[in-house]
Amino acid sequence: VGERIMRHLGIHLLAELVECNTGSLDDLDKIKNFVIQAAVAAKATILQSFFHKFVPQGVSGTVIIAESHLSIHTWPEFGYAAVDVFTCGDRVMPYIAVQYLIGELEAKRHETREITRGYNVAEKG
Amino acid sequence: VGERIMRHLGIHLLAELVECNTGSLDDLDKIKNFVIQAAVAAKATILQSFFHKFVPQGVSGTVIIAESHLSIHTWPEFGYAAVDVFTCGDRVMPYIAVQYLIGELEAKRHETREITRGYNVAEKG
Repeated sequence: VGERIMRHLGIHLLAELVECNTGSLDDLDKIKNFVIQAAVAAKATILQSFFHKFVPQGVSGTVIIAESHLSIHTWPEFGYAAVDVFTCGDRVMPYIAVQYLIGELEAKRHETREITRGYNVAEKG
Repeated sequence: VGERIMRHLGIHLLAELVECNTGSLDDLDKIKNFVIQAAVAAKATILQSFFHKFVPQGVSGTVIIAESHLSIHTWPEFGYAAVDVFTCGDRVMPYIAVQYLIGELEAKRHETREITRGYNVAEKG
């Protein structure tokens, strides 16, 4: 019985989208559509999604995918969106999802940090 | 009309829980209960939750809270869980949620990275 050591199980992108279109950031339907389309663009398999509009402003949402999740939280008053794209496996392309959202939200500035998840864990065989 | 610069809008904890109780990691009801109770312990306001059991193994779930979200993805075959606790505001205590999950999942090893979200964004007043 062997032991398989994984370098990592997943890639988690944390993207800061700044100077976005503030109207879009406060539009539940747009945000929902953008994040679901981002998941599709990344070739993820969507299981379920949930989006919520805050009063007076802001939208939060998550799309659970077979390969982990996408999430967004928007602050229209700051022109800011926090985007997460967490994927496992080689088939899904998380950077495509982030690029899609940067484009749709018209972010003038953005920064994406890549965090590896589940590094050096061992499967008992 | 002034401009308010925020040092950051949110705290995002990315926790790697290793050498967990593998039975718990594959138990949908336990995982759901643990993550919801973690949100309660952190004094978060729960809006909606969704959990999914994979075949042959593993559970994914998200709890959307008024202050952002908690998520979990488990790999029972590796004894591993990827936990995220993303909170905004001063009222919620994200480290309490992570500590709660470390305890309930009996993680023998863990590492938590704290990432600030939405730093140096400006509110137009």
